[in-house]
Amino acid sequence: MTSTIPQGGLEFSPTADGFTLHLGGRLLLQHSAQRPCLSVGQGEADIEMFRGNFSIKDNLHEKLALTACAIRDSDAGLCVTLSRGEVAAATLMIAQDEAGRLRISVNNHSPHHNRIWLNLVAGPEERIYGCGEQFSYFNLRGRPFPLWTSEQGVGRNKKTLVTWQADCQENAGGDYYWTFFPQPTFVSSRRYFCHISNSGYMCFDFSAPDHHALAIWEPQAELCFDTAPSQLALVSKLSAMLGRQPELPEWVYDGIILGIQGGTEVCQQKLDRAREMGVSVAGIWAQDWEGRRITSFGKRLMWNWRWDEELYPGLDQRIPQWKQEGVRFLGYINPYVAIEKELYAEAAAHGYLTRDAEGRDYQVEFGEFYAGVVDLTNPEAYRWYKEVIKRNLINFGLDGWMADFGEYLPTDTFLHNGVSAEIMHNRWPALWAQCNYEALAESGKLGEVLFFMRAGYTGSQKYSLMMWAGDQNVDWSLDDGLASVIPAALSLAMTGHGLHHSDLGGYTTLFGMKRSKELLLRWCDFAAFTPMMRSHEGNRPDDNWQFDSDDETLRHLARMTGIFRRLKPYLQQAVAENSREGIPVMRPLLLHYEDDPQTFDLAYQYLLGRDLLVAPVHQPDCRTWTLYLPRDHWVNLWSGEPDSGGHEVTVDAPLGQPPVFYRRDSAWATLFATLRDA
Amino acid sequence: MTSTIPQGGLEFSPTADGFTLHLGGRLLLQHSAQRPCLSVGQGEADIEMFRGNFSIKDNLHEKLALTACAIRDSDAGLCVTLSRGEVAAATLMIAQDEAGRLRISVNNHSPHHNRIWLNLVAGPEERIYGCGEQFSYFNLRGRPFPLWTSEQGVGRNKKTLVTWQADCQENAGGDYYWTFFPQPTFVSSRRYFCHISNSGYMCFDFSAPDHHALAIWEPQAELCFDTAPSQLALVSKLSAMLGRQPELPEWVYDGIILGIQGGTEVCQQKLDRAREMGVSVAGIWAQDWEGRRITSFGKRLMWNWRWDEELYPGLDQRIPQWKQEGVRFLGYINPYVAIEKELYAEAAAHGYLTRDAEGRDYQVEFGEFYAGVVDLTNPEAYRWYKEVIKRNLINFGLDGWMADFGEYLPTDTFLHNGVSAEIMHNRWPALWAQCNYEALAESGKLGEVLFFMRAGYTGSQKYSLMMWAGDQNVDWSLDDGLASVIPAALSLAMTGHGLHHSDLGGYTTLFGMKRSKELLLRWCDFAAFTPMMRSHEGNRPDDNWQFDSDDETLRHLARMTGIFRRLKPYLQQAVAENSREGIPVMRPLLLHYEDDPQTFDLAYQYLLGRDLLVAPVHQPDCRTWTLYLPRDHWVNLWSGEPDSGGHEVTVDAPLGQPPVFYRRDSAWATLFATLRDA
Repeated sequence: MTSTIPQGGLEFSPTADGFTLHLGGRLLLQHSAQRPCLSVGQGEADIEMFRGNFSIKDNLHEKLALTACAIRDSDAGLCVTLSRGEVAAATLMIAQDEAGRLRISVNNHSPHHNRIWLNLVAGPEERIYGCGEQFSYFNLRGRPFPLWTSEQGVGRNKKTLVTWQADCQENAGGDYYWTFFPQPTFVSSRRYFCHISNSGYMCFDFSAPDHHALAIWEPQAELCFDTAPSQLALVSKLSAMLGRQPELPEWVYDGIILGIQGGTEVCQQKLDRAREMGVSVAGIWAQDWEGRRITSFGKRLMWNWRWDEELYPGLDQRIPQWKQEGVRFLGYINPYVAIEKELYAEAAAHGYLTRDAEGRDYQVEFGEFYAGVVDLTNPEAYRWYKEVIKRNLINFGLDGWMADFGEYLPTDTFLHNGVSAEIMHNRWPALWAQCNYEALAESGKLGEVLFFMRAGYTGSQKYSLMMWAGDQNVDWSLDDGLASVIPAALSLAMTGHGLHHSDLGGYTTLFGMKRSKELLLRWCDFAAFTPMMRSHEGNRPDDNWQFDSDDETLRHLARMTGIFRRLKPYLQQAVAENSREGIPVMRPLLLHYEDDPQTFDLAYQYLLGRDLLVAPVHQPDCRTWTLYLPRDHWVNLWSGEPDSGGHEVTVDAPLGQPPVFYRRDSAWATLFATLRDA
Repeated sequence: MTSTIPQGGLEFSPTADGFTLHLGGRLLLQHSAQRPCLSVGQGEADIEMFRGNFSIKDNLHEKLALTACAIRDSDAGLCVTLSRGEVAAATLMIAQDEAGRLRISVNNHSPHHNRIWLNLVAGPEERIYGCGEQFSYFNLRGRPFPLWTSEQGVGRNKKTLVTWQADCQENAGGDYYWTFFPQPTFVSSRRYFCHISNSGYMCFDFSAPDHHALAIWEPQAELCFDTAPSQLALVSKLSAMLGRQPELPEWVYDGIILGIQGGTEVCQQKLDRAREMGVSVAGIWAQDWEGRRITSFGKRLMWNWRWDEELYPGLDQRIPQWKQEGVRFLGYINPYVAIEKELYAEAAAHGYLTRDAEGRDYQVEFGEFYAGVVDLTNPEAYRWYKEVIKRNLINFGLDGWMADFGEYLPTDTFLHNGVSAEIMHNRWPALWAQCNYEALAESGKLGEVLFFMRAGYTGSQKYSLMMWAGDQNVDWSLDDGLASVIPAALSLAMTGHGLHHSDLGGYTTLFGMKRSKELLLRWCDFAAFTPMMRSHEGNRPDDNWQFDSDDETLRHLARMTGIFRRLKPYLQQAVAENSREGIPVMRPLLLHYEDDPQTFDLAYQYLLGRDLLVAPVHQPDCRTWTLYLPRDHWVNLWSGEPDSGGHEVTVDAPLGQPPVFYRRDSAWATLFATLRDA
């Protein structure tokens, strides 16, 4: 029997019939015959997709708790073999890597065992954060979180009428864990992180008081753990491992990026009107630059990824003109090609699309139209699509685009690399991000041109330049309205992605929802305190209040974009810090106040950089707002009143004055003070 | 190795690594190392109840497929030991009983294995019926059916607004399989039945094309199979085994039993008015005979099971008077005692109530009031409650009652017999039926006094004199309205209970639902062609159209009760046949036309006795109706038109003329013909 091996914080101690494993003093894994830490088994996944909405069930054939334990040393580290009679066995290879991280490889011995259940030790008071972009919960304790990239759901709460209506229509209502950006990575309040390199379906269940139950639908798994003396250091270590985002182009901070559709002249007119009313405009984002189609859902795009000269006459001339005026033009792309058009024909001719079981090009139904899936695992196809981005987007003159989708890879399609689509499904968004990233990098445009994504997975930290929160409802709901953007940004921050923004005003306009003026204004107030302001008309623009629906709105926008613009140096510095040290721009309070347990569950307020505390108003008809201030020397941004924190505080919160405090001792205090008169 | 044993139709054949088991030529069980028929494992049930609505999950620790097979003869029959290495094993004891039925006992060898999964062989075209009272499906193929007695749900279809509203309020919406009367018993179109004697939670999954997956949350199980040359013979064999219902009191056929509440004079006035308008009245059913309380749900009863002299002054005199006039008086009881009153005090004093974990009397929340659970496993308590029934109900003069509830036994209560409430939960309704039955039998009142129940389980066939379909919505929904009563009656018929009726007009009046006049009239038309007519005011009487809401309704009722009354000899004979031969009164068409596959899935039409085919109109605003007529010599009851069947037919279906055909060659044809002029 191998004896205790303390090794840079790794402590493995055999016991009578098992072992304990500590890292940096934290008990992570514990095994005994009575309480085995590992089960293995066999299941058959039953995965149905309809328009990005997944129904996932496991047809479980067997599950075996591995009770017996044998330990030996090996060149690759400690080798722990767990078994159950002659019936099943698996090996845990336990080692530390050069950076001092704990690495555990789990390997099933039986080829037909394709399920792993691993229990980590948990404490009753422990909090868990991360798992990608989580819209409903910041602290994930108390619930299971299936990790599968998909639509985020419309409503996302079975007790709302909107969710029920969306469910009835196309199983689209979703639930608290639905997300475009899941990730098998979490941070514990015990100051360790856990990351799994796999990409098959997983479910992390944080319900039990004494353990975290990690279910992995693969025959082997690679886990990685690390600890740090503080949450901030831990998040920094995590992002060092996963990769960090480069800085944003400098022009992003110059004002709002206006979401406009409808053609060159519409853009010109709306731009003129906005500027005339004093709005700071950094760009125009026209997702229909490549044409559009009308479906029952609303206006949709023509997925052929090249300038539509008919809808946007003279755009090639107008882009440089706008640019000279300080206004960038941004477009849209996604990893699918509509079957009616020439990009599809080209991809099909070269065999660049994913296949169906009969070897034909797989066609995905996207709501009254079909598209092929560019096979990003085929190096030729990947290169080709990168060239499409370079030629049709970058060289055409776009200064940015929404790189939409990524979460729809059907599990019954066949890929060039021979890996099951069930395993590639989660990896797809990161692959899609990488494709965009490389197109930029190879064009020498990193730091100048921007793309932003909603879908993500491990790898997106490195390749996705900016996340956006996907498709919120144009409403006040906690799970899918304005509010949901905040835990989304914070959970992503705890997963190593530090750049986040949202559709200003929300997107999904269905089931009688219509964006009110108040919602647009509150969202504007919120967006001014994020690293990027970008509006969206929504899927049914005519039903929604828009930035130019009246003069008051435009004046409001003028004021808030002015504030955003004044924050430019502060934001730039925070974004640089994120790039350099992996400390997110929108931060959970606990990153700086982890000695105060009150901050552990704050899902609806955040720090913007180190020195601003923001608590967006996310309910209608409020003129005051209550938030929590940790102990520090705070100043109310609008009233100038000081507050030393350590308590809840209720502040005046009229439209245009979102609850914001700054640190009295901030190096930026003078700048912040000027905003009071904005 | 034991060789083939053909034994009265039982054929057991060892194979290279397993066996096949046939009964009467039907392949029922098949085992090989590759496709093991049995898995065992361990789970921990997580069962939550709120007002009879259950949320049930299994925390599954392990599941092992038993691949190896060893066969030996024993005194008790064939002994097949299935195992998986040294890790798990179970024994199948296979034998035929004196009646030629196949008996299989499954026994886990390991004491900690408390789950059994058994796969039976299925054919792709096979239909499955039964599993108790199923409201949404008659043919159960294609879905899993959890078997757990509970409320039936309000709406019972996640795509209806009512269901969603009920779910939001108290998880009360239910689903397609929710039922008061589940039973682990089914009949296959391959002409065999399968019955399991256990009572723990089970789930029978009929989704797979090649097998039926039976999950049983107990360490052992007792299965029983039999075959017959026809479905009719099979159902008769099944009811011979399970027990049959005695004949109904003769007075039941004399007219409607009017559901009235509000006191002696209200009953008198409504009775007078009904009779004055020509309604045939067999009885008054006053559920509030023992007093009432008002809650937010509507009018509820005072659960103290004795005449409330204040609300019903002079009732002791009025009952014999009404009886002389041919009108019986029926009351209400259930197995709970309200904590405010003396029955509870008496039960508590004697220790007759079930207990909580601390040994105190368990109190169940029933919606703004609490009640104790009479412990029917305590022989003293059981006897006492029988005496309550005899003294307070029978001796007081009631000629019948609703024996409500039975499905609410909480799983965290503790019982006198020491058996876990998780195991007793399903048995409770049958125990409750037996208590009522014995009270009647011991009073010599069987065949004279009637009780009817909604909850049931194995055993209810013998002890529950009459079932009613529980609480339908006062609406037209397929899953919870008028329509749902028909598959309920038919599935119960295939489970061996042949007497069924429903609340005429439906019951649940919530979420804006209000009973329309048309619904009441259609329900009346339907009820006239069932073995019992009984109206209900609903839980919010003032919101509902009632039998006496206008003269036209009363005239309609007069006509339909007249028709019902004229059917008396025919109904009596059908009920006698049910009692004697176990052939249900409301019969699926396939019982008499099993050569016609078109009849296999008919969920919304039935045979009443042998000679009437009834297809109730269950949608609003219809004046014609389409039904299927199997090949036979049929006569349209209302038009007299003949039809030789073998096709769908669309008939006129005005109010008061529900689609009904009779067999030209019926011995009752003359009687039926007279109804044309009714």
